[in-house]
Amino acid sequence: MEHEMGPQFQSELKKLQSKFMDMGITVSDQIYRSTKAFADHDKEAAQAVVLADHQINEHETDLEKQALYMMALQQPVATSFREVISVLKASSDLERIGDHAVGIARETIYIKGNPRIDRIEKMIANLTDAIRKMLEDSLNAYFKEDAEAAKQIAKTDEEIDRQFVAIRKAVTSKENEDAQHAAAKASYLMVARFLERIGDHIVNISEWTVYSKTGRIIELSDDQKRMEDHLPEQ
Amino acid sequence: MEHEMGPQFQSELKKLQSKFMDMGITVSDQIYRSTKAFADHDKEAAQAVVLADHQINEHETDLEKQALYMMALQQPVATSFREVISVLKASSDLERIGDHAVGIARETIYIKGNPRIDRIEKMIANLTDAIRKMLEDSLNAYFKEDAEAAKQIAKTDEEIDRQFVAIRKAVTSKENEDAQHAAAKASYLMVARFLERIGDHIVNISEWTVYSKTGRIIELSDDQKRMEDHLPEQ
Repeated sequence: MEHEMGPQFQSELKKLQSKFMDMGITVSDQIYRSTKAFADHDKEAAQAVVLADHQINEHETDLEKQALYMMALQQPVATSFREVISVLKASSDLERIGDHAVGIARETIYIKGNPRIDRIEKMIANLTDAIRKMLEDSLNAYFKEDAEAAKQIAKTDEEIDRQFVAIRKAVTSKENEDAQHAAAKASYLMVARFLERIGDHIVNISEWTVYSKTGRIIELSDDQKRMEDHLPEQ
Repeated sequence: MEHEMGPQFQSELKKLQSKFMDMGITVSDQIYRSTKAFADHDKEAAQAVVLADHQINEHETDLEKQALYMMALQQPVATSFREVISVLKASSDLERIGDHAVGIARETIYIKGNPRIDRIEKMIANLTDAIRKMLEDSLNAYFKEDAEAAKQIAKTDEEIDRQFVAIRKAVTSKENEDAQHAAAKASYLMVARFLERIGDHIVNISEWTVYSKTGRIIELSDDQKRMEDHLPEQ
């Protein structure tokens, strides 16, 4: 039984969703700047990403507070209920993505000055491109409440996982065994893992877009199984 | 303005919280089994952890559905509202902890048969003990609605981060530079990172315990800054 919430609620909901989009844009920007800093070996740019992270945490706390306030006082129903819940849940995923941006920035600071492996850095750059597109698409799907687009985005996570496994293989392969690259290899593994994790959180955001639109709670990824398939048994 | 929800709601809330505790126990068990399999180099036990993960995902979906159902239909207020919200939010953290247990199990499968480094495995065993205690304490604090205990638990995350940084240093140190340990070192780094991430999720659960009890949304960790402090600039 669907019924409309009043104009005051609608106006607050609009503000809440617009704040969520602002947070999405901030997170997207942090990912852009942290991956660029990593590719450019730019320690100063990486430090700026670390320093900006508190903004994202404040965004999340702010969204949580407002969403809980609306839930508690206005008790929205049907679509309105789902829209507030989606913000409440998906904001945690955005916050985690922001943490991973900081993780990538930290690696940039950590390995500055160490010898690098160009071939693996190219692989990471490709994974980075895929993740940035995926995040942008998922925010668009959320904004347009496009459940079908959200489902499609979740499917691209399979390609992300494949790229992660390929980077891992390259890092541990015999051809890069020389000791001078130990620090770089550890960082490549960490950065690839951060990017792969960002993919998982984007899938979660897509799941909340589907819930908001349709009311159905679905599991869009079968991540663990898939990763297992890619790993050789030794 | 606090007012009591009816007996039907109270009974459903009790069921919801008991399901949350069941999920906590299942996740705790997965962590125990995956870290033990890693320490014992036991591939079969690790595979059992991977296969059991779907239970945790089902737990989470089940809890989400029930929490949202209760929110939507019974519109709880005050403490009851916060208790349902806490389950809704903290169940995502439990699910992520379960994912990390699978990650650790996957590493066990992945490096089986490769040469190991005893000293680093001991460090990982210590970190494992600390994490298992932290998880157990946080579930107890949740169960007893003990906000003070929850705050104390969050503080132990500092020690977890310190141990993670020490393992990372050991992995990349010159004394372990020989090429035959490349696969093991990659796995040590991954496992240590999974454990460190579990610590972050335990802090989140503690934050929701505090919210449930006090109504205050607080940030109990200053994780990124702390990690930064521990990392040498190179």
